[in-house]
Amino acid sequence: MQTNATIKDVAERAGVAVSTVSRVINNLDRVSPETREKVNRAISELGYIRNEMAASIKTGTTRFILTVVPDIINEFYTAVIRGVEARARENGYFTLVYAINEVHSAAELREFGDKLSSLVDGVVWVPSMKKKELDWLAKKPFVQVDRMIPGSKGYSVVVDNYGGACMAMEELVEQGHRKIAYISGKGEFNVDVERFRGYQDVLRQHGIQIREEYICQENWYQETGYTCTEQLLKLKDPPTAIFSGNNQICIGSAEYMIEQGLIIGKDISLVEFDDSLVAKYLGPGITSVEHPTYEMGYMAAKMLIRLLDGEVLEKKNIQMDVRLIKRNSVARVS
Amino acid sequence: MQTNATIKDVAERAGVAVSTVSRVINNLDRVSPETREKVNRAISELGYIRNEMAASIKTGTTRFILTVVPDIINEFYTAVIRGVEARARENGYFTLVYAINEVHSAAELREFGDKLSSLVDGVVWVPSMKKKELDWLAKKPFVQVDRMIPGSKGYSVVVDNYGGACMAMEELVEQGHRKIAYISGKGEFNVDVERFRGYQDVLRQHGIQIREEYICQENWYQETGYTCTEQLLKLKDPPTAIFSGNNQICIGSAEYMIEQGLIIGKDISLVEFDDSLVAKYLGPGITSVEHPTYEMGYMAAKMLIRLLDGEVLEKKNIQMDVRLIKRNSVARVS
Repeated sequence: MQTNATIKDVAERAGVAVSTVSRVINNLDRVSPETREKVNRAISELGYIRNEMAASIKTGTTRFILTVVPDIINEFYTAVIRGVEARARENGYFTLVYAINEVHSAAELREFGDKLSSLVDGVVWVPSMKKKELDWLAKKPFVQVDRMIPGSKGYSVVVDNYGGACMAMEELVEQGHRKIAYISGKGEFNVDVERFRGYQDVLRQHGIQIREEYICQENWYQETGYTCTEQLLKLKDPPTAIFSGNNQICIGSAEYMIEQGLIIGKDISLVEFDDSLVAKYLGPGITSVEHPTYEMGYMAAKMLIRLLDGEVLEKKNIQMDVRLIKRNSVARVS
Repeated sequence: MQTNATIKDVAERAGVAVSTVSRVINNLDRVSPETREKVNRAISELGYIRNEMAASIKTGTTRFILTVVPDIINEFYTAVIRGVEARARENGYFTLVYAINEVHSAAELREFGDKLSSLVDGVVWVPSMKKKELDWLAKKPFVQVDRMIPGSKGYSVVVDNYGGACMAMEELVEQGHRKIAYISGKGEFNVDVERFRGYQDVLRQHGIQIREEYICQENWYQETGYTCTEQLLKLKDPPTAIFSGNNQICIGSAEYMIEQGLIIGKDISLVEFDDSLVAKYLGPGITSVEHPTYEMGYMAAKMLIRLLDGEVLEKKNIQMDVRLIKRNSVARVS
């Protein structure tokens, strides 16, 4: 008996198409009893063992993965989604997407979860809410991406938020900046806490005073970038450089600067976390911490599918590296 | 008997919370028989008529709307999705998203449709495929957005593709351009046909010869913008202006131009259909035909929900206006 027979071998032996073998294995309809019998005989004669792909399409599973994101505006989240889609496809899963949009009550989310849970096998999740609101998710296997619910013990794929923030800050300090502002959202997620810690630590390490008025924390949206930049640049002693905590904030920051006729990389310096098409093409190009978003989604879907296959993962939490892309948005000051 | 009683009146009369009344109306569980009885009595005593919101949450409906888009990369589609989400939310619906990504076989799409159709009440759909592949959608009410399946007789929300293309072309001709190239995807959808017709008609109206070598049609992705622009600018007699048929193509076009050290709006002129953040911020800002994407999604969801409510819509096809946003990417030539 040959033990590494492929689905193609089975098809040949049974005298049917590969897709027919697949239909039999996965217990789908549109196969005649005769054909089913022929295929099953070939399978047992060849000692065929289903490969990863076939095995993941187990009977009784729905083949749907749900990806939950905070919103669909941010190209950061859509890149995560594309990564999930790619890996899911390789394993024969369909990917549905749901954007929370921060508008739902806990009751609505529960109702939503109740209805969805019969459709999806598992969830890849970029969390944006507090712990108490995720009850409905707990019914299904899930992997968190990028943000982690504070205190969460589950599976996750995140980036080195602290390291990335340090890279961005070191670049500014190296170019002579001492008056560096930080704009971000505020909260207790890893992204909130770790990036801010990076900002503060680099200042401390270089003996630069941390100034309250240079820290502006509202939320992670474009609006915050705009209003905080306005507020910062209107200070009596304004910063010479701004570190925008994510790509949305960066767009808002740049928008205000451009409106004021400031030349980025000359009159004012700007670095950001995340990278984006806008960061790449805006003015002189914005120096950015590149976030491997697509890869995070891909990795999370891979972990989730292994969980769905009943595997035990040794590593529950994966941290991916980031890198600094230097463009021309940082002026040298002396 | 008062006929314009609200859900609040019912709640007060029955001595329960508004959410409890809602649960009874919608036949949800977690309501005791006693409470259900109390609420139903209050409803009939007050002659309560469910409002639009309540009525849309009919018993037996799932409250899920599916939005199907070609891909999730393009901010155009994510804007449509946000529009759908906004309107769906107003009517108590959840919006799920599925990106086709042009990788599925007809059989896969059928399987997908079979599984999903029990979950969703209706579909808002930006089509990207041929007619024969949409069978599974036909099981549910749907509204097409932006693109229309050739020959489709269903409900739709589109923009004035012809008018927008004419605006973009007129702007180039007005600035003295005679050597104008066109880059787009090719196909039989309204966007394929109408924009190209606009390009040709404006040239004809101004007595400008339509030159084969100035027309480059592959697909609607960034890559096409890049490779076509390279090809066009390497012609012995290259165009002085390029009309990029959508925002993805525009990014590719601009990328090639920038790589070659060309200054957009001086060495070469560029206009595009769709508008985008990149078009706004890239170089001098790209003159664009603005596409009301969010509004299209909102309108489509509104139509769909009216259909789900059993209304007969007098207007099956809605065409929205576009406008030209003039930025600085068009040089004056003589």
